[in-house]
Amino acid sequence: MKTALVAGIDIGGTNTAFGLVDRQGHIHDRSTIPTQSASAEELVKEVSGEIKKMILNLGPAFVLKGVGIGAPNGNHFSGCIEYAPNLKWKGIIPLCSYFEKELLVRAVLVNDAKAAALGEMLFGGAKGMKDFLFITLGTGLGSGIVSNGALIHGHDGLAGEVGHTVIVPGGRLCGCGRQGCLETYCSASGIRKTYLQKSGIEDSLEIDSAYIFERARQADPVALDAFELTGQWLGLALANAVCYTSPQAIFLFGGLAKAGDFIFHPVRKYFEMNLLKIYQGKIEILPSQLNEGDAAILGAASLLWKTEL
Amino acid sequence: MKTALVAGIDIGGTNTAFGLVDRQGHIHDRSTIPTQSASAEELVKEVSGEIKKMILNLGPAFVLKGVGIGAPNGNHFSGCIEYAPNLKWKGIIPLCSYFEKELLVRAVLVNDAKAAALGEMLFGGAKGMKDFLFITLGTGLGSGIVSNGALIHGHDGLAGEVGHTVIVPGGRLCGCGRQGCLETYCSASGIRKTYLQKSGIEDSLEIDSAYIFERARQADPVALDAFELTGQWLGLALANAVCYTSPQAIFLFGGLAKAGDFIFHPVRKYFEMNLLKIYQGKIEILPSQLNEGDAAILGAASLLWKTEL
Repeated sequence: MKTALVAGIDIGGTNTAFGLVDRQGHIHDRSTIPTQSASAEELVKEVSGEIKKMILNLGPAFVLKGVGIGAPNGNHFSGCIEYAPNLKWKGIIPLCSYFEKELLVRAVLVNDAKAAALGEMLFGGAKGMKDFLFITLGTGLGSGIVSNGALIHGHDGLAGEVGHTVIVPGGRLCGCGRQGCLETYCSASGIRKTYLQKSGIEDSLEIDSAYIFERARQADPVALDAFELTGQWLGLALANAVCYTSPQAIFLFGGLAKAGDFIFHPVRKYFEMNLLKIYQGKIEILPSQLNEGDAAILGAASLLWKTEL
Repeated sequence: MKTALVAGIDIGGTNTAFGLVDRQGHIHDRSTIPTQSASAEELVKEVSGEIKKMILNLGPAFVLKGVGIGAPNGNHFSGCIEYAPNLKWKGIIPLCSYFEKELLVRAVLVNDAKAAALGEMLFGGAKGMKDFLFITLGTGLGSGIVSNGALIHGHDGLAGEVGHTVIVPGGRLCGCGRQGCLETYCSASGIRKTYLQKSGIEDSLEIDSAYIFERARQADPVALDAFELTGQWLGLALANAVCYTSPQAIFLFGGLAKAGDFIFHPVRKYFEMNLLKIYQGKIEILPSQLNEGDAAILGAASLLWKTEL
């Protein structure tokens, strides 16, 4: 019997990572190329060529089942990347149809955080869960909401923008043009802003979330305070989030989540403190169980495997 | 052929209303009895006796298909009312099993706001919609979230508590014991508090949301200001709510929604003003199309009809 593989493709602002993933979540081959060296169509041709080579190299026991793509502003319903602020390609890019033309198999697209949420469900810590919230704490705050075993897409494919809920009216200016969005406080760039404010340091390129983590390990009170404040904002925001979909668990993923207890401890404390009584003591806040390097590829591939369940 | 009817039962703090509803949403017979005159089991016996009489009176062309119940703190998964603060019955009440014992047909339970949301989808303004938000502005703020054609229940049946998202940390004391919940600002009792604060009037029994509506119609600036402020809070809260499930429309129902433009105008203004760009101009805020007197019965009956779709 042939082994079916899905090409999981993660299109990021800088690099596009892709790999061949089987139903058990093993990555059989993988590669990375720069995203923005070319037009979208040229990138698709290049990635498709690599995928063909990989499949042929693996030998006749393997077949390509489909293509799963995670990308910023990827719309599941249209199969297009729509007005992604962090990509060079402007307007609407019909990515799925480009891939289907090259590889002749079905292509499915979703935004990157939603793809990772599916990866967590199929291959990570959310195995067997039907209701959970997945939060990526990277440059921004991305989210994927799984309810009754399925991603929430919304009527237009644009559900799950928890990072753009306003938590401080009139607060920090957000990349979206509004003020006080959750992601301006709770993300790698958010904690950087908090640290700079609290320390009184002028802007410095050296200071990023890894630097603040390192300072916290050295017991720098300003760094510890920055984590405490971040946890306070995120704990309240997640307590509010629970009121919508009542998840069994909340997974934190991405750069800031790597700070371990420095971030999980205050988040859990303020989460439980702000939670409505009926939810108290039963919702876990957990680190993602996906390996950082694999998550995006596994997540993108999950899009196709999910439809098999 | 026999006509199947569902008994729709709405258990409220004061009265229990019930009626026999066909697949088209016509109510063939109805009645009301006081809720708290008896124990839960006695109430179920009394209501069941009335329902049997109604069916027999309608004649042999009609059969009872099932029982749909909407009740405060009704848990769809357990079929029980769980710790309802506004009912005399304490603890966990296995309401569905009581009804099944009396009427020998399937009984389904859900909280009252979720029942009304289903009623809106089957028989009201949300016909044909798969993604919408339903908000009741009564004594509190209740909500039902429909995503991809189904109610969101969450892992424990307790999803959809939008009224208990904290919008003003450290704000007004809520019945839930926390501070600053949306329902302490945006509900019939919330606007009453706002009006009293703004007018400087000592507490007065005369002042309720109907009174404030009447004052607004007479151009009382304090009443107009109370509606404006309520719209400001609710508009922002709903703009945040959209980030979770990206609904096609938001329906407002209940006492406060009857104030028409006085509430809809500011809500729509602040909603649009606070909305993330990708959602702007495409989500309608609409009055419920359910008749106030029928909504609860239709909503409860929808629970059974919905499973037919």
